[in-house]
Amino acid sequence: MIQQRIDKLQAALRGRNLDAFLVTEPANRRYLSAYTSTDHGIQESSGVLLIPKKGRPWLLTDSRFELQAKEETQGFTVELYKKGLFVLLKTLLAGLGARRLAFESHYFLHAAVGRMEKVLGNDVELVPVTNLVERMRLIKSEEEIGRLKKAVLLNERVFQQVHSTVVPGMTEIEIALTIERIMREMGAERPSFETIVAFGSNAAKPHAVPSDRVLKEGEIVLIDMGLVLEGYCSDMTRTFTVGKPDNLFIDRLRVVRQAQLAATKALRAGAVCREVDLAARQIIVDAGYGSCFGHGLGHGVGLAVHEAPRLSSRNRKQLRAGMIVTIEPGIYFPGWGGIRLENMAVVREDGCELFNEDLTGLDL
Amino acid sequence: MIQQRIDKLQAALRGRNLDAFLVTEPANRRYLSAYTSTDHGIQESSGVLLIPKKGRPWLLTDSRFELQAKEETQGFTVELYKKGLFVLLKTLLAGLGARRLAFESHYFLHAAVGRMEKVLGNDVELVPVTNLVERMRLIKSEEEIGRLKKAVLLNERVFQQVHSTVVPGMTEIEIALTIERIMREMGAERPSFETIVAFGSNAAKPHAVPSDRVLKEGEIVLIDMGLVLEGYCSDMTRTFTVGKPDNLFIDRLRVVRQAQLAATKALRAGAVCREVDLAARQIIVDAGYGSCFGHGLGHGVGLAVHEAPRLSSRNRKQLRAGMIVTIEPGIYFPGWGGIRLENMAVVREDGCELFNEDLTGLDL
Repeated sequence: MIQQRIDKLQAALRGRNLDAFLVTEPANRRYLSAYTSTDHGIQESSGVLLIPKKGRPWLLTDSRFELQAKEETQGFTVELYKKGLFVLLKTLLAGLGARRLAFESHYFLHAAVGRMEKVLGNDVELVPVTNLVERMRLIKSEEEIGRLKKAVLLNERVFQQVHSTVVPGMTEIEIALTIERIMREMGAERPSFETIVAFGSNAAKPHAVPSDRVLKEGEIVLIDMGLVLEGYCSDMTRTFTVGKPDNLFIDRLRVVRQAQLAATKALRAGAVCREVDLAARQIIVDAGYGSCFGHGLGHGVGLAVHEAPRLSSRNRKQLRAGMIVTIEPGIYFPGWGGIRLENMAVVREDGCELFNEDLTGLDL
Repeated sequence: MIQQRIDKLQAALRGRNLDAFLVTEPANRRYLSAYTSTDHGIQESSGVLLIPKKGRPWLLTDSRFELQAKEETQGFTVELYKKGLFVLLKTLLAGLGARRLAFESHYFLHAAVGRMEKVLGNDVELVPVTNLVERMRLIKSEEEIGRLKKAVLLNERVFQQVHSTVVPGMTEIEIALTIERIMREMGAERPSFETIVAFGSNAAKPHAVPSDRVLKEGEIVLIDMGLVLEGYCSDMTRTFTVGKPDNLFIDRLRVVRQAQLAATKALRAGAVCREVDLAARQIIVDAGYGSCFGHGLGHGVGLAVHEAPRLSSRNRKQLRAGMIVTIEPGIYFPGWGGIRLENMAVVREDGCELFNEDLTGLDL
């Protein structure tokens, strides 16, 4: 599988008259090498790939990651940079006789390009490239789809286990940490993003950070959580109340759920991204909540929790079979709170296959 | 405090003939605005600052972060980008009559500079700037030093609580999650990096990722942990064994501890960074372990867990009073394991003030 991906990328390099390609984006690095290390931000990389237009590729890293890099990769030569990445790169490129080096312009710091130019000198032309590997990742294989579905089903099991224990008196942080503990106990590598747990008016912030706010009877609880399983991410949101919900909550939840169902129905290969967004948005607008839905309907998911395609009112691209998307309409009311529901599905030729099976709180 | 920092930055902009400055680096953003939001990687910013050379600055974000941005900042105008950051920027710059816009070249994607140029057009000259705010952050005020010390002392309390419960049969992940839970229960915002817990031979990887490996009697346990308290980071490493350590472990631990003490003694304003590294390194070399110490001695800490100055054998800069550094020598043996000890200290005119108070396992 890795070898096929490298072959395909190398063919693309030859087609663009590129001698080598430097892979810095962490999900691309994992996709092409199986190296699982994560980075501490863009300024602290745990390694990059150097893919020549043909022949054996390299994984370049430092001594901290040497053992892991050698254990996890096959078909790669692991080299350590001791005097910096660019100095090592100069040597390897000279050995290849490479003159045109492509780099990932969308995951390369502006200042670092300047430093790289200085070290490599005039012998090597730097060619900025964007989203070359991301485009390969856009359409998932059946194996990848299987892993994504497994991640979603595990996500649901974690959610259900925590959901059944939520009672007044708990704090947002307490629930968030419980979720992250249970997901790892159940086999997840890590959360795919920082778990959101928001009570009451805090749920009006789509990206709320869990606080020590204490849950009261009857309050809204919004949980947006994701995990990583075998490299692939899940992303799921549920909104419910502890105790009996009032009618306003039920009405608003119903609007969001109807919007979600409408979008799910509109999802299929050939559908335009913005039309899927609008299928959900129209229902929210019709209910009088148009101004309360400030974000896009959804996004792609794979090795990264946020990737292409974006389901937004501005994206005029068509969906293709094998793409994965979230369907997450939400409405937010400062002071009152918010409601968001998020599922994940794979786009198929004649519709979509929803990964989520649990209907807790959605069976309206 | 925020206002003083803005004043100082604006004076620096005027001194460089810059009309405005775009702040994208998250720790710089927090330093200048008190806005606490964190980003989901460089590609998903929760907002940027636009600092004009004089007058009121802006915080530019999207609707997801509007409430938080308004709650947390004072003296900033919060503006939402609906058609993208660069379109909003164009309008604001035109209103200012700004012709020269500086941006943080070390925290700006190469591809994004291209897109920004395209939107802003010929009216605005883009000026790459590096580490302007980082240099302001390098010397900590007494208030910042107080917060950093508080973070370290909380870190020690969390460590002690967990340390006393470590027994054979526990897994690396279990201990790591317990640490992260307890730190939040004790008031930390979040871990400052992913907690490292490594048993036995796993401790040979300086950046080991916790696994489901089960702890056995007599094995090495290396814990490298940090937390964020009131925005400021701690970073601390301890290595111990469960049960009675063998003589080889004790000998090696003693070498690392002696190296750490030597470096602590060498730390003072005016000392050259590489000389502090070498003070520790020489002891490790003399013990015959020179090739086992593959990383630098330490790094600065503040709003970011890794910042300047680097204590490495290549850094010829001098330390100044008010800088914060880690002192973390380590030796690693594939197959056997590794030992690292890490403290934090503030550089003073006549020496250093060690933040750490706990000597568990160091009292050799």
